[in-house]
Amino acid sequence: MAQKNIPDIVIGRLPVYLRSLQRMAQEGRQVTSSQELGERLGISAAQIRKDLSQFGEFGKQGTGYNIEFLSKKISDILNVDRVWEVAIVGAGDIGSALARYNGFNQRGFHTRLIFDNDPKKIGMKIDDFTVMDAASMESELKRAGVQVVMLAVPAGHAQGVADRLVSAGVKAILNYAPVSLNVPADVRVQHIDPVVHLQRMTYYLD
Amino acid sequence: MAQKNIPDIVIGRLPVYLRSLQRMAQEGRQVTSSQELGERLGISAAQIRKDLSQFGEFGKQGTGYNIEFLSKKISDILNVDRVWEVAIVGAGDIGSALARYNGFNQRGFHTRLIFDNDPKKIGMKIDDFTVMDAASMESELKRAGVQVVMLAVPAGHAQGVADRLVSAGVKAILNYAPVSLNVPADVRVQHIDPVVHLQRMTYYLD
Repeated sequence: MAQKNIPDIVIGRLPVYLRSLQRMAQEGRQVTSSQELGERLGISAAQIRKDLSQFGEFGKQGTGYNIEFLSKKISDILNVDRVWEVAIVGAGDIGSALARYNGFNQRGFHTRLIFDNDPKKIGMKIDDFTVMDAASMESELKRAGVQVVMLAVPAGHAQGVADRLVSAGVKAILNYAPVSLNVPADVRVQHIDPVVHLQRMTYYLD
Repeated sequence: MAQKNIPDIVIGRLPVYLRSLQRMAQEGRQVTSSQELGERLGISAAQIRKDLSQFGEFGKQGTGYNIEFLSKKISDILNVDRVWEVAIVGAGDIGSALARYNGFNQRGFHTRLIFDNDPKKIGMKIDDFTVMDAASMESELKRAGVQVVMLAVPAGHAQGVADRLVSAGVKAILNYAPVSLNVPADVRVQHIDPVVHLQRMTYYLD
């Protein structure tokens, strides 16, 4: 489904559109417009129309977008019209919070496994999960066919663990460690570092 | 310090450069180059040079960048050559993890207050913090002069709380709730939603 010539910055906005559409659907809404979406998201209506037009014709001039139809189309484009099995590596504060977070399932992701290398954490229960020994990580990931991992280990361990994930066939890493990762070109990495986001805002403060 | 004509996407890369430089400094390094930084970050050396050149001349052709000097300059630009007092709203899994996270202090942020509206959480200890009653949030934020808040409340409450934060003078919100926020133009919002990042990656997977 991926059309590799679409700029990544456009791809990055699609999940935000989808989230807003799904919220409208929860509110019982059936039709929206690029104007309304834009106001909700702080993005211009023209930008939204331009982004969506890269993938096809999803709305009619004057009648707007059917919310269910557009949600389905964007889910298709993002490959989340299916459910991805996800593993979490690191059962500290963040990994545990991710394991307990119930917002993944209805948005295309199902947490399947959680690993740690700390003997005090291995075997521990987090909700329905039992923390598994990171020593068996590669074989367990391969057996489960997991391609998507959330990495929540200390900064100093992140690259080493990432190398192991890559060798186990992982293709997408959501990295919570505050450090950049080097991975092969066919592996995607996204970073979540609150300080990076905070610093991006303080630039504008006095 | 803010030079408002710099594209926000450039501002967004500066914290990543700074993080990498600070890591090099920890490794005992003194000099780096746009090539080395680029390899660490998966960004082209030309892009890094272009970004930095918007703010001045920080390195010499052939001799590279002095790490301490460049770190200091980027900290100045991002206004993190000072410490920002930060409040956390929401003492659930994420808010608690943020309160315990020890990576803020050396990067320009000091957690000062944490609020919740749940009587079971108010008064609870999280590390050195005592969870405060959200009913007194506006007055406490004003008294402490807090301009930066990390918002970790359920999606359905986020906009209401954001409105109260704005009325209390908050100018920067790091929003962990999976919902877009409407705020006045002089208030900055950054979003952290793991699903948005995951979906941005699954686009590229088969």
